[in-house]
Amino acid sequence: MSENEELNEIVSNEDLVENKKEHLRELLETKHYAAFIRAMDEMIPVDAAEFLSELPTNRASVAFRMLKKDTAATIFAELEPDLQTSLVGAMTDREVHDILEELYVDDAVDMLEEMPANVVKRILKNATKETRAEINRFLSYPEDSAGSVMTSEFIDLTKTMTCTQAIEHIRRTGIDKETVYVAYVTDSSRVLEGVVPLKHLLFSEPDEIIENIMNTNVVYAHTQDDQETVANMISHYDLIALPIVDKEERLVGIVTVDDALDVLEAEATEDIEKMAAILPTDKPYLKTGIFETWRKRIPWLLLLMVSATFTSTIITHYEVAIGRYAVLTAFFPMLMDTGGNAGGQTSVTIIRGLSLGDIRMRDILRVLWKELRVSMLCGATIAAATFIKVFAIDFKFKPSVMVGEALQNNLQICLIICMTVFFAIVVAKLVGATLPILAKRIGFDPAVMASPFITTIVDAVTLVIYFAIASSILKF
Amino acid sequence: MSENEELNEIVSNEDLVENKKEHLRELLETKHYAAFIRAMDEMIPVDAAEFLSELPTNRASVAFRMLKKDTAATIFAELEPDLQTSLVGAMTDREVHDILEELYVDDAVDMLEEMPANVVKRILKNATKETRAEINRFLSYPEDSAGSVMTSEFIDLTKTMTCTQAIEHIRRTGIDKETVYVAYVTDSSRVLEGVVPLKHLLFSEPDEIIENIMNTNVVYAHTQDDQETVANMISHYDLIALPIVDKEERLVGIVTVDDALDVLEAEATEDIEKMAAILPTDKPYLKTGIFETWRKRIPWLLLLMVSATFTSTIITHYEVAIGRYAVLTAFFPMLMDTGGNAGGQTSVTIIRGLSLGDIRMRDILRVLWKELRVSMLCGATIAAATFIKVFAIDFKFKPSVMVGEALQNNLQICLIICMTVFFAIVVAKLVGATLPILAKRIGFDPAVMASPFITTIVDAVTLVIYFAIASSILKF
Repeated sequence: MSENEELNEIVSNEDLVENKKEHLRELLETKHYAAFIRAMDEMIPVDAAEFLSELPTNRASVAFRMLKKDTAATIFAELEPDLQTSLVGAMTDREVHDILEELYVDDAVDMLEEMPANVVKRILKNATKETRAEINRFLSYPEDSAGSVMTSEFIDLTKTMTCTQAIEHIRRTGIDKETVYVAYVTDSSRVLEGVVPLKHLLFSEPDEIIENIMNTNVVYAHTQDDQETVANMISHYDLIALPIVDKEERLVGIVTVDDALDVLEAEATEDIEKMAAILPTDKPYLKTGIFETWRKRIPWLLLLMVSATFTSTIITHYEVAIGRYAVLTAFFPMLMDTGGNAGGQTSVTIIRGLSLGDIRMRDILRVLWKELRVSMLCGATIAAATFIKVFAIDFKFKPSVMVGEALQNNLQICLIICMTVFFAIVVAKLVGATLPILAKRIGFDPAVMASPFITTIVDAVTLVIYFAIASSILKF
Repeated sequence: MSENEELNEIVSNEDLVENKKEHLRELLETKHYAAFIRAMDEMIPVDAAEFLSELPTNRASVAFRMLKKDTAATIFAELEPDLQTSLVGAMTDREVHDILEELYVDDAVDMLEEMPANVVKRILKNATKETRAEINRFLSYPEDSAGSVMTSEFIDLTKTMTCTQAIEHIRRTGIDKETVYVAYVTDSSRVLEGVVPLKHLLFSEPDEIIENIMNTNVVYAHTQDDQETVANMISHYDLIALPIVDKEERLVGIVTVDDALDVLEAEATEDIEKMAAILPTDKPYLKTGIFETWRKRIPWLLLLMVSATFTSTIITHYEVAIGRYAVLTAFFPMLMDTGGNAGGQTSVTIIRGLSLGDIRMRDILRVLWKELRVSMLCGATIAAATFIKVFAIDFKFKPSVMVGEALQNNLQICLIICMTVFFAIVVAKLVGATLPILAKRIGFDPAVMASPFITTIVDAVTLVIYFAIASSILKF
């Protein structure tokens, strides 16, 4: 029984990797370098990269320089830019040259974009003329465009080839390509004509001509398209790679599905950060220094703090009334938080819908009509719950709430609060729906219009509503 | 020049698809059915599905039943469950049978999970015995597990095959498989032994034996692993598919990268919704009814509204002091919002880090130490800015702020606010860092510990700090 249990015990991949890394550390510490090099060779490159990045930089550099040339290059492509920069600093020009020629162009470009100028200069100096020209071309695409994430290492065929010739062509040229599972058919001026999945090549008759089996209904994007659009297309059409063309419809590169995954993950993180009033960062949390983290967080905190001047002004305006009806202030947090939460729910839903393409510009009226009805439902529910809570609980068990002078009737104050919470929710949800769509219309990122920003606006509106209702009912 | 511009004008894929859909609508309306069927056949299935789902249900059903059998099946797999259910309702038993046998098992299971029980019963009744057995097995995996998203249609090889035999095997059996680009090597009891990418088969000598070229360093997951873990592994290792094994390490299915993309997108949306205090939903925003949207939003709004009782209680406790120093209330919104924003920044960062695997349980002390330093930096910055703003601006230009009795010294009130904002930020960030990690430790989803929840706690703490400092300085 216990043997059986042990047999069935499941070791997660994470634990397996941790064990392997522990073993590598031991080999290094005990100076079993030959075994270390072999073990690194057998390790999956991205795990080996993770191992290196957990070592102190100088030890990582020593360990890295022991590795076999091609193992080193594949692992290098998986490292964080910081460590890449340090490693390049310790390399000879010859080694820099070798690593660079082994990398896919898109990986090389990603790396160079993050490195200090002097390191970039040294790397480009050591590249072959062709690599340098290609890298420079890629570096000229705007950041976050399809051009900047694509790779130029794809397989192209001509439509007069037979399947056998095409497979032979793939065998001969495919080794350096980022994917061999989709091939692209171009004409003599490199204009994209069709796509042939390797699957079709395998399943067709050997002497069938490419023109007859290629798919001409090609989904493609342009170099200047946004990387998020491209990634969404890959996801939408379940593609292994999406061809990228220039303005003249010539095929210049492809974006593969693994890059699309990275883009979508990064874009989701960026949206989440923006929604939480943080400037987006590329680095993982634990690898970001405290000053950098501070720099990413302080601008919005400052801006939102200063914008609270509006709310202070409103409250100050009613200071005398507050002096008399101090009980009103006890409901400030509840009213403002509820408004903020209600607005945040809507704005976040709309922002995500815009980013996934579920909601489009032309849907604005449908969105507002829906939010109006939902907000009235939510507002009525919360108002009813508030009535029960305030009248039946707060006032029953805490008579101290009532020490404010001139409050003849609990019902009055309860009415003020319920009406305010209803209108606050309706306004919050309409503001939360409108601002992200407006932001997109004028070319801003909708994600910055999320909860914190909406909260500030909704706070002010809620207070105005609160005092307007209170002053008309309590006559101050 | 203008001709050239027109030539270079770029039509986005979205516009192209819209044009095609418009054309299809016209063909339907003018009753050009033969042309309609041909056009649907040429349309990419996911776009054709989108077209159908934009028609009124009864017209979609008529249009769907015109289609060729295999076109219909591929399009059916891409439809939303609502429309699938309606279509099944209008089909003959024979048609249900045909559609079901054409679907991949994972698509069939996805569909059945969303359908009403009577429809599921009818569909299973029309399945072959084998299909029914397999679907039932898949339906028994827990929701959101690797088992529930995997497909059993993969290619398996034995290690004694040659490359030529393996390619022949793929040619013969591959047509129904979800991917042919990775093949799996299993022993006689179906235990996973290795992986062979099709690329390696192509690039190896034809009579090389699989055992010599297969990769035995296989990354895999178990049926009961979380779908998010599986998707993260596919993304981390840049895989086309991840093999899934049962408790006895027997290969039972694969998860492909396109499914991983869908999982990661859905999980990101779910996290974002939870962070915004919404119960997660599967449906796109515009396809959710207003009562359903209300049901997803109202529980958290209610809970957070009720929990504001704490803040009311605190304020009520200091009611007499507020009556005297009404000026204190003018800073409620600023202090609470700043605390809430600061806490939200941290909690959201930690939640995302936990979900991407950048932050792990054992990092808790590193996280707290980092947040302590960052929060003190942020707190000091905001306190300084607040000092300048309150002392130099609010008090200079709005002397009305000072009508509260007994406030001899602007400096006193300014000091209270600056100290409070400093401590509020420090506490907010520490709470924001601790709660998501604690939630994960006790098996809750960290995402529910995001801004709205933290805001409520931070509001209360901020008020306690505020009144403690104020009462000790102003002696009330």
